[in-house]
Amino acid sequence: MESTGVASPVIKVAAICGSIRKASSNRGLIRSAIEICEESVKGMQIELLDVSPLPMINTDLEVNGRFPPAVEVFRQKVLAADSILFASPEYNYSVTPPLKNAIDWASRPPNVWADKAAAIVSSAGGSGGRRAQHHLRQIGVFVDLHFINKPEFSINGHELPTKFDSEGNLVDPETKERLKKVLQALQAFTLRLQGR
Amino acid sequence: MESTGVASPVIKVAAICGSIRKASSNRGLIRSAIEICEESVKGMQIELLDVSPLPMINTDLEVNGRFPPAVEVFRQKVLAADSILFASPEYNYSVTPPLKNAIDWASRPPNVWADKAAAIVSSAGGSGGRRAQHHLRQIGVFVDLHFINKPEFSINGHELPTKFDSEGNLVDPETKERLKKVLQALQAFTLRLQGR
Amino acid sequence: MESTGVASPVIKVAAICGSIRKASSNRGLIRSAIEICEESVKGMQIELLDVSPLPMINTDLEVNGRFPPAVEVFRQKVLAADSILFASPEYNYSVTPPLKNAIDWASRPPNVWADKAAAIVSSAGGSGGRRAQHHLRQIGVFVDLHFINKPEFSINGHELPTKFDSEGNLVDPETKERLKKVLQALQAFTLRLQGR
Amino acid sequence: MESTGVASPVIKVAAICGSIRKASSNRGLIRSAIEICEESVKGMQIELLDVSPLPMINTDLEVNGRFPPAVEVFRQKVLAADSILFASPEYNYSVTPPLKNAIDWASRPPNVWADKAAAIVSSAGGSGGRRAQHHLRQIGVFVDLHFINKPEFSINGHELPTKFDSEGNLVDPETKERLKKVLQALQAFTLRLQGR
Repeated sequence: MESTGVASPVIKVAAICGSIRKASSNRGLIRSAIEICEESVKGMQIELLDVSPLPMINTDLEVNGRFPPAVEVFRQKVLAADSILFASPEYNYSVTPPLKNAIDWASRPPNVWADKAAAIVSSAGGSGGRRAQHHLRQIGVFVDLHFINKPEFSINGHELPTKFDSEGNLVDPETKERLKKVLQALQAFTLRLQGR
Repeated sequence: MESTGVASPVIKVAAICGSIRKASSNRGLIRSAIEICEESVKGMQIELLDVSPLPMINTDLEVNGRFPPAVEVFRQKVLAADSILFASPEYNYSVTPPLKNAIDWASRPPNVWADKAAAIVSSAGGSGGRRAQHHLRQIGVFVDLHFINKPEFSINGHELPTKFDSEGNLVDPETKERLKKVLQALQAFTLRLQGR
Repeated sequence: MESTGVASPVIKVAAICGSIRKASSNRGLIRSAIEICEESVKGMQIELLDVSPLPMINTDLEVNGRFPPAVEVFRQKVLAADSILFASPEYNYSVTPPLKNAIDWASRPPNVWADKAAAIVSSAGGSGGRRAQHHLRQIGVFVDLHFINKPEFSINGHELPTKFDSEGNLVDPETKERLKKVLQALQAFTLRLQGR
Repeated sequence: MESTGVASPVIKVAAICGSIRKASSNRGLIRSAIEICEESVKGMQIELLDVSPLPMINTDLEVNGRFPPAVEVFRQKVLAADSILFASPEYNYSVTPPLKNAIDWASRPPNVWADKAAAIVSSAGGSGGRRAQHHLRQIGVFVDLHFINKPEFSINGHELPTKFDSEGNLVDPETKERLKKVLQALQAFTLRLQGR
């Protein structure tokens, strides 16, 4: 029932993970973010959207203005969200195909990302996903997302001692604390953009 | 005697199209490039590789060091090529999911792109794909491709009078001439890198 | 007396031109923006800051926590502004040295750009400055500027019929109309971020 | 007398430092590279070009097709070089004004960078300059430089234990070894592009 601009009492965040691997540490970041929100960021709720059912983007699949069913479901959930949390791995210095695919489907007219606040977190090798984050921010200009600038969050998931267990769960308390600060900044920026 | 590339007498170019739409004008650019080569760029042969059978990247699909069959086939063809021709649309200021997916699969160790020459052509709205090309060049640093710098080739496929017919075939003679110059530059750079 | 967060009744915009050429069409864009504001964007005032007196950045010139006089003056004006209008040419696919120099000096601690709204307009050859704009947006992440996403404004200043006279004054009515829309969007975004 | 394409028996490398600070660790990297070359990379000679006398770019300073004297000197040295070594700090996620200024002056027609091999090394905070390097690579597309892809070299100069002494001299043996590998790769790529 809600249109984009109408503020719900609780901020609803759609979370999207760029990896479809079972033990993805980026999905682990989202699970951790959900827990942190429940425990200590009052007024914000995160739902992880599953991007794995989305077909590879191909506008030939749009028939009579209808998207494939999995795409429709995904788009509805993005539209209903107040803001977006991306967990973006870095593949070859850029974003992953599943993440870009989700973005591209939801950007098809009418673009359901438009004018929402967003934040990015990354676990990756090397520089921790910062290059992928910059590509994602550039993509965000066109799809009209407003990313928080600070704090930036990227961690080298391969570095020892590891911050994740073997199933990709974040287990490092200090990193959880940093993640909480991202969520608080996203909440504040969402409220600010919504004029609350 | 020859190093890295083991030069075949004819330069073999693997062409990859970032769109899987039937009437893609980017695939049209590759069809046109194939014709131009046959007619007037002696010593170079282009083969269009189909990226549509590749599953969405997920390293859980790699079992006992084996890739899914479609991935194996694709990787063999990339490995056998002397150089690469990308036809890259631009979706939301970046490369497309099918293109990134193909790059990511073929970059899995051992990276089969390594040390090859490459060129990019684009048909897209707005600025004609130049932002996607810059993302692709940044990706190329990690996967170790050597892109030609000049000439750059990006055309606004939406501009009138249209340069493509309704099936995505390039029909504009001046654009064909520009495309030919890209192919000649790719040939020259490939030979130079191979020490021929 | 004002701190960053305190709204003045009129939005004060600091405008910065990336070229120090006399007949710069980018400075012409700012002159035109000033006129448009006076005539038809009530509640917003633009002041062009001169970046030409700034020395080439060198932190050895900071002595006892003091900046060179021209830098101090510039920093004060940026600090006092509610938002920023960049007129950015494109030199070799990136921002110009005078523009980057101004940004870097004003980012020295305490960073006086922090948390302001911003917009970019460009007159340039080729794709009209869009690559420079993306570099500027990336720089903006670190210095904590919030750029409007839409409308984007880049014009090919070399294209005929020319939109500028020989002194760099914008003379094309349609382009003025587009420029006005950028200013209105900047105004709206500034008010939104300030909670007004 | 030599034109760009004519190989001298020894590869001449022009080195450019993006900082004009006295104790710049990036200039320290170049001093170290010069020593390493003299000691153990036979057939390659590095000369550090001073960019501090260059005026801030302004094409109004070009009179009757002549550049300001300091610019002429700089351009001659770039032209005479076989390849380029950039030592690039990172200021606000991009290249520095002195570096961009040097690039822009030398790109004025006729562009004296054209078709040369190049490498980048960086000492910087955070991710060690990798974002600046990507901007520099994008700039390189337009000015027609061919950057080596591997090895990439960026070090966090602020990390402890420090790799530099207080005057910016590189004192860490392991980092010197990494730097040597960059120089060897630049030498090999220069020879390859020159067909030697």
